[in-house]
Amino acid sequence: MASYQAPLRDMRFVLNDVFRAGEEWAAMPDTAEVTPDLADAILEEGARVTQAELFPLNQSGDAEGCRFDAGQVSTPKGFKAAQRTLAEGGWFGLGGNPEHGGQGMPKLLTVAFEEMLYATNTSFALYPALNTGAALLLDHHAPEAVKRTFLPRMYAGEWLGSMCLTEPHCGTDLGLIKTRAVPNPDGESGIPATYAITGSKIWITGGEHDMVDNIVHLVLAKLPDAPEGTRGISLFLVPKRKVGADGEAGEANGVVCGGLEHKMGIKGSATCVMHFEAAEGVLIGEPHQGLAAMFTMMNYERLSIGIQGLGLGEVAYQSAMDFARERLQSRAPNGPVAPGKPADPILVHPDVRRMALNVRAWNEGGRAFAACVAQQLDRVRFHPDDTVRAEAQDLVALLTPVAKAFLTDRGFEATVEAQQIYGGNGYCVEWGAEQYVRDARIAMIYEGTNGIQAMDLVGRKLFRNGGAYMTRFLARLRDEIEASGSSAAIDDFTQAALAEAERLERVTAELLARADGHPEELGAAAADYLNLTGHVVYAWLWWKMAAAAQAGLEGQGTAGEAFYHSKLAVGRHFISRMLPRTEALERQLRAGAEPLMALSEDDFLTQG
Amino acid sequence: MASYQAPLRDMRFVLNDVFRAGEEWAAMPDTAEVTPDLADAILEEGARVTQAELFPLNQSGDAEGCRFDAGQVSTPKGFKAAQRTLAEGGWFGLGGNPEHGGQGMPKLLTVAFEEMLYATNTSFALYPALNTGAALLLDHHAPEAVKRTFLPRMYAGEWLGSMCLTEPHCGTDLGLIKTRAVPNPDGESGIPATYAITGSKIWITGGEHDMVDNIVHLVLAKLPDAPEGTRGISLFLVPKRKVGADGEAGEANGVVCGGLEHKMGIKGSATCVMHFEAAEGVLIGEPHQGLAAMFTMMNYERLSIGIQGLGLGEVAYQSAMDFARERLQSRAPNGPVAPGKPADPILVHPDVRRMALNVRAWNEGGRAFAACVAQQLDRVRFHPDDTVRAEAQDLVALLTPVAKAFLTDRGFEATVEAQQIYGGNGYCVEWGAEQYVRDARIAMIYEGTNGIQAMDLVGRKLFRNGGAYMTRFLARLRDEIEASGSSAAIDDFTQAALAEAERLERVTAELLARADGHPEELGAAAADYLNLTGHVVYAWLWWKMAAAAQAGLEGQGTAGEAFYHSKLAVGRHFISRMLPRTEALERQLRAGAEPLMALSEDDFLTQG
Repeated sequence: MASYQAPLRDMRFVLNDVFRAGEEWAAMPDTAEVTPDLADAILEEGARVTQAELFPLNQSGDAEGCRFDAGQVSTPKGFKAAQRTLAEGGWFGLGGNPEHGGQGMPKLLTVAFEEMLYATNTSFALYPALNTGAALLLDHHAPEAVKRTFLPRMYAGEWLGSMCLTEPHCGTDLGLIKTRAVPNPDGESGIPATYAITGSKIWITGGEHDMVDNIVHLVLAKLPDAPEGTRGISLFLVPKRKVGADGEAGEANGVVCGGLEHKMGIKGSATCVMHFEAAEGVLIGEPHQGLAAMFTMMNYERLSIGIQGLGLGEVAYQSAMDFARERLQSRAPNGPVAPGKPADPILVHPDVRRMALNVRAWNEGGRAFAACVAQQLDRVRFHPDDTVRAEAQDLVALLTPVAKAFLTDRGFEATVEAQQIYGGNGYCVEWGAEQYVRDARIAMIYEGTNGIQAMDLVGRKLFRNGGAYMTRFLARLRDEIEASGSSAAIDDFTQAALAEAERLERVTAELLARADGHPEELGAAAADYLNLTGHVVYAWLWWKMAAAAQAGLEGQGTAGEAFYHSKLAVGRHFISRMLPRTEALERQLRAGAEPLMALSEDDFLTQG
Repeated sequence: MASYQAPLRDMRFVLNDVFRAGEEWAAMPDTAEVTPDLADAILEEGARVTQAELFPLNQSGDAEGCRFDAGQVSTPKGFKAAQRTLAEGGWFGLGGNPEHGGQGMPKLLTVAFEEMLYATNTSFALYPALNTGAALLLDHHAPEAVKRTFLPRMYAGEWLGSMCLTEPHCGTDLGLIKTRAVPNPDGESGIPATYAITGSKIWITGGEHDMVDNIVHLVLAKLPDAPEGTRGISLFLVPKRKVGADGEAGEANGVVCGGLEHKMGIKGSATCVMHFEAAEGVLIGEPHQGLAAMFTMMNYERLSIGIQGLGLGEVAYQSAMDFARERLQSRAPNGPVAPGKPADPILVHPDVRRMALNVRAWNEGGRAFAACVAQQLDRVRFHPDDTVRAEAQDLVALLTPVAKAFLTDRGFEATVEAQQIYGGNGYCVEWGAEQYVRDARIAMIYEGTNGIQAMDLVGRKLFRNGGAYMTRFLARLRDEIEASGSSAAIDDFTQAALAEAERLERVTAELLARADGHPEELGAAAADYLNLTGHVVYAWLWWKMAAAAQAGLEGQGTAGEAFYHSKLAVGRHFISRMLPRTEALERQLRAGAEPLMALSEDDFLTQG
């Protein structure tokens, strides 16, 4: 059966030992009140509430799914009550702006809670994930009056947000959208107060459901005078129910749910077709600048979806370990370890351990990666020093697509490998392992496919600035290792991280040279380059974790805590048995675009 | 939408150009009548019947699934009629023994038909796959009277076979089975004619269903005097309905279906819990030798399940290519290719091509791999020369676990990568791509998990004979390349195959040395070693295909057929962008068992 407890010990290690959260928070005025004790209490309560409220609804929610009936969407049994419990506990506003009722907790802390949400119930987790991103967008781009009306409701989980981008004929290429926004003649001095939004959107997570009274849609649409393509997109807030001057939800807006998608997984998440029929909306940000504003939300969601991969990898791991300790098949290679039983638990077999350690090394590396990006996001938000903020912003820009794609690729791989540990039971619904695979699969696709993330990395984040972000990242990595004076006991980690940094530098230089005047080289390299970058980031983070674990051990006298020994062992598994993939990636990247472009379009057809 | 036509052009290429089937068949008396024209007619009719009868039932069968009601199992709508059509067309006895009503077609031909079965409808394909394996087992091990009674019915598709091994507490470790066989006092000279079989079996594909009048269960059970473990297992034929002296199915036997599994995929395949309640069965083969006899069937099924991976990879590819040519998003990197349309078809994007070519290179390599093993199986069955038969048997022994595991690992990877090409549509049920992923996932698990295949490879097929099979395989590969005098135009393929052979030789020697006295080293290496072997086999087969394509081109004057040009281009993609994985595998293998064994069992638990 599925089994989960929030990995609090490891979360504390990442927060305190690796990223020194206490010092970090103390150094920034807006987070100075967040002590490690407070953080710990939040983590413990977060673990309790997700385990008690959400985890029991995960399999039943998958079996039941969402239902559509005459424009109404019902979420699975128990979702509504759980939503209310979490809302009342303040969990929907954990990281929100305190000026409008949020709790202002740093991202470094909230990512750990996000991981628990996804691990215990990914379908449910998407409702707060979309809401938090929508609130973040409004906090950055909405007029003050809109913030005052909407943010307290959203932070309180009374109203929830949605993100309406995709249309049937366009997902990736938003320049093609057809949804229109026409100014209503209701404003002062010729500036319209509202717009009439008309068009259809698909794949809208939480576009309609029964958990709250109002849904706050953030909708991309084109104004009558809009330029062609992505430079002509504007952003509108379109509530399900119109909000009066009293700030209460009133009459229905022209927003209609046309149906639900039937999906491979995340069946408790309502994926809606939404029709906007002259729906009243307000402009957020400047006309035609909607896509840039939407990126505030998209970047939030991209990291969040990465954490979906991590959370699912973690629950898949824990569940598989339960099975592997109980299931008896065959004997250990060096003789029985449970001679009184008919066979040994399968965890004795090296190949089962290989799979378990693969999953675990991805998870632990992923947890550190999420925290790393979160720390930089906190610096962007809270740090008083302009230089620090700017450096952090560059690192966030570079690492966001990597976090989204690499964490979800590895998360999917983790759920598949965990499922394999079960043998035939892994394929049977009752054990839960197959649901994790299905739920993880979407994470590689939505919020921009992983191919799109890779194009973002090699195009906007690498080529357009001549590799400046990457150069700075690699310099930072080396400086950090050099300055650390890390123990010789972890020299294998140090050497691995430095060697991989050198590899990434070499590959980057080759790619930039090859792509000059040959844009197809970027596309050809994108996926492998992102994959390589992810591995190098993990090599760096495993070095950081090894240094922290070694320091922990050295502070504890002779024996030391088993946790630190395990951490080093998992890290050594990563270096010796997983990191070698970079060697293949470097070679694959050398192949360039030519083999991909050698075939004509017709050559891809199969001849009968 | 899903789209498929049997890849007949490539199947003919593999048969005629690569494996020279005509010469091969002409050289063996029992296959001398199989001409390339006859083979071609069979392929065309096989394509027609699977496309017309099975493909339209694939998505509906998944949506409907099998149903269980009071011991009865209903297959999805249309399955019964399709089964009758295929049975009447003689397709259930295509490779069967002509002495008992089979058509005696060589495996080199029947694997191509098997691929069509799995591609058009994997759930359906499992019924004939189990039946063919069961008939093969009976043809090898059953007494003449049993063969006369059962084989004609099974080849005619009137009765279908099943394979009853697994019990709730044991799958991999069959030595633990509890099903008992007690001799009935009904024989002559103290030898029982029948046995009473009692016990429960799970995961029995086609254990009960409504397509035929009788089901022929091959059941592993223990006799009262059985030794412990796998040396005490006997094999019994237990029909659903007892078969009288007239050869007709009569009264019900003590065989009861207790229910169906709810699975991730292959929902049209009835996966049954079967209870045997003093069911009447006859012994097949010698007492306590049942597992060896069962391996005749298991080895058949292992290759067949490999072909499941291939078939699903192929249909996933073709369907994704339909989508990629229709879906318009963004512009090609070097400027519009469809300037009259709002965007270009996504197949212009290098990263989409990368995914498409990955899938295709696995598929085409896999088709050659299946044919390669099939050719050796034909030699074992038909070849008049003892030495040739023995050599072929060794190669079959070496390659069967690789074919099962590598074809299914790559088949799953192919369906996942094909799904990715669709973006969000790939996650929505209506497009069919997600079903291929779910249907492919089981192939890595059943018929012995891929981890078990890897243990079979490194243990029985490698370590136990000091690497003799592998040494002979590598010598054969080199001899073949050396003797071929292949064109300098394909020197890149030649060099790649030779370099990979050298790598495998090196890794094998290292592994054998390291595992001496350290059996845990075999388990630690198993999965990566099998993966490496699969890549090297593909490197060899891509060389063979390149040589055949190049020869084809050179025989055609200046232009040459586009098919051959594409074949070489796909092969070059394989070599430059996929084969580099072997470099990583070699490094991973060097890590040995130590990092896997460093953690105690408790260290695998997560601390809250």
